[in-house]
Amino acid sequence: MKILSVNAGSSSLKFQAYEMPEEKVLISGVFERIGINNSFYTIKINGEKIKTETVLNNHEDAVKILAQELIKNNVVSDLKEIEGVGHRVVHGGEDYADSVIINDDVLNTIEELSDLAPLHNPANLIGIRAFMKEIPSATQVACFDTAFHQTINKERYLYALPNEWHDKYGVRKYGFHGMSHRYVSNKVSELIGKENSKIIVCHLGNGGSISAVKDGKCIDTSMGFTPNAGIVMGSRSGDIDYSIIPYIMKKTGMNIDDVDTTLNKKSGVLGISEVSSDFRDVEAKYDENDEKSIMAINLFVNSVVGYISKYYVELGGVDAIAFTAGVGENSDFVRKMILEKLECLGIKINEEVNRSMRLGKEGIISDDTSSVACYVIPTDEEVMIARDTYNLVK
Amino acid sequence: MKILSVNAGSSSLKFQAYEMPEEKVLISGVFERIGINNSFYTIKINGEKIKTETVLNNHEDAVKILAQELIKNNVVSDLKEIEGVGHRVVHGGEDYADSVIINDDVLNTIEELSDLAPLHNPANLIGIRAFMKEIPSATQVACFDTAFHQTINKERYLYALPNEWHDKYGVRKYGFHGMSHRYVSNKVSELIGKENSKIIVCHLGNGGSISAVKDGKCIDTSMGFTPNAGIVMGSRSGDIDYSIIPYIMKKTGMNIDDVDTTLNKKSGVLGISEVSSDFRDVEAKYDENDEKSIMAINLFVNSVVGYISKYYVELGGVDAIAFTAGVGENSDFVRKMILEKLECLGIKINEEVNRSMRLGKEGIISDDTSSVACYVIPTDEEVMIARDTYNLVK
Repeated sequence: MKILSVNAGSSSLKFQAYEMPEEKVLISGVFERIGINNSFYTIKINGEKIKTETVLNNHEDAVKILAQELIKNNVVSDLKEIEGVGHRVVHGGEDYADSVIINDDVLNTIEELSDLAPLHNPANLIGIRAFMKEIPSATQVACFDTAFHQTINKERYLYALPNEWHDKYGVRKYGFHGMSHRYVSNKVSELIGKENSKIIVCHLGNGGSISAVKDGKCIDTSMGFTPNAGIVMGSRSGDIDYSIIPYIMKKTGMNIDDVDTTLNKKSGVLGISEVSSDFRDVEAKYDENDEKSIMAINLFVNSVVGYISKYYVELGGVDAIAFTAGVGENSDFVRKMILEKLECLGIKINEEVNRSMRLGKEGIISDDTSSVACYVIPTDEEVMIARDTYNLVK
Repeated sequence: MKILSVNAGSSSLKFQAYEMPEEKVLISGVFERIGINNSFYTIKINGEKIKTETVLNNHEDAVKILAQELIKNNVVSDLKEIEGVGHRVVHGGEDYADSVIINDDVLNTIEELSDLAPLHNPANLIGIRAFMKEIPSATQVACFDTAFHQTINKERYLYALPNEWHDKYGVRKYGFHGMSHRYVSNKVSELIGKENSKIIVCHLGNGGSISAVKDGKCIDTSMGFTPNAGIVMGSRSGDIDYSIIPYIMKKTGMNIDDVDTTLNKKSGVLGISEVSSDFRDVEAKYDENDEKSIMAINLFVNSVVGYISKYYVELGGVDAIAFTAGVGENSDFVRKMILEKLECLGIKINEEVNRSMRLGKEGIISDDTSSVACYVIPTDEEVMIARDTYNLVK
């Protein structure tokens, strides 16, 4: 069965076509700068990468070209062969604990939840509607970034705020990166081959989050009501004392939106290093002994170690810690810094293996004597979307 | 040598007179509702407690009466016998890492720092000035709530925000309850009789904070830029996702000050239990199986356990965990909940001893087999102020 896995942003659209259940990627690509000037798309097939510049006025333009490319490249001879299209949707609120076949109710709920994810859900909806129009024969499936975290219990997802803020306005911890945390924790669970497993997943990318997973179920995660909370990120502050907001508004005359934007786009590793929100750039400067970059990486590492420590106890000890996403998969340097700070828990890194683990390699990076097995697991949110879609369509 | 220890709030003034260095309390008392109607004061001497209703238009009125009471009760025959007056001052910013004799520069600095503690520093200053006028012969000393935390290093006190917010506006972690954390960690250090000690102090009162103390120096603490950050408190939320603020402003039409007030005065244990900000009331309701009170206590306990876990790793393992302040000294129930959640670190409570430890009792509450010694230590910020004052005056 042929399945598309789709991730639509406000000006982009990524896709992979799979043969399922074999999980074979048939073609993949990304459309960029949709609705902006100089738009283009890139297709990857048979190890080749082809970039094409073309006008993309909207997501429908992109989906039309996608359909043509599928046929042109002999992925399908008729679009009806695509039996399912799985869409990444950022916010499923308290409504969805699993992926779901899209109908009018689901569309309405995703729209209603746009209040909680004003930048993402509307873009996800545009993507869904474009595919509904272009490939109407396919079953459309919504895969929520929040769904995996819906197993977190109330005493972990509630903030100590007036109850009305939760009951009336939906203020609570939702958590994000759910497809990634689920993929990686499943994978680690297979690798350790233990039925009852306690796993901490560190998704460290430009955005980052950490999850505590017990017996396959998420019991806590570092992102919160929004993806701005938790660990220090590329350009997001992560956790701060909220009272900084009223103070800085008074001191600078900034309004709440300015402050919010600064906390989102000019803080984190970028704010402290003054170099970049890209960890690779900041690491390069760290190597040059740049004081601010050293500070930025230290703040980041400390915030990750803090959450691992907290989740270690929440889980009552752990079987495995896994690193994934851009930084987690590729920066042996950051992984080493983190794991060395966890030594008092009996965790020991195998430095040689750790150094070799990058560019998509998967494996164990802890020493045989380590109390906890530590892994690098390249994440694959796309295949998770394809799996969920296949399971709902088959 | 006779020393006064003073804590001036906006409408209150607490004091103790000590014979130093013996640390004998000669008289103590509190003036309440200063500048409000129905003002009164309470004096404690020789085990007796006397309440007197009187007009207290301002702090000077209170200090005048205090002086009369000192003479009337034969604590001194002349006010000149009071050689030092130590004042609790909430915010010492980055300027003071120790208590200091007050001169014009110090007064100016405390005033400048009022931006960071608008409710507290001005009240502290009024208290200082009243004593300077009434007992001009005494050396006035400022003891800062933030001073003990000035040993926290930059990678622990900095937030991942634009550097300008720290450099220009002083945004960073300061920490509070410093006199208490110092008193308790000193005491525990004596009790365990180890030169290099690693201690976590849990100051759990209506406001609460947790500190990590290594070799007598604070290396981290849960309160932040303000006393609103960290663990769940009586009416303060503690840590939240800051993005709740812009969201709730938009949803409710509240302005930033309304939101700030709600987070400060209507959140925490009060917000969730809808019973009280007093833990005793909420515990009573917990015992009656009140769902919201159970939730409130659980959120509180989880937040405390989270910080202990984090600091356990930050310290690289710990020798002792100490509980202090209202809840920490008196609620065996809360201490039990906290310590049981730390079992995976090898911590074991002695339930019988724990139950008996209240109403000012000091002692160990962990089992002999516990990996970490756990203590209840009644705090004494007043004697710390008296000690610092004596040491600067003698």
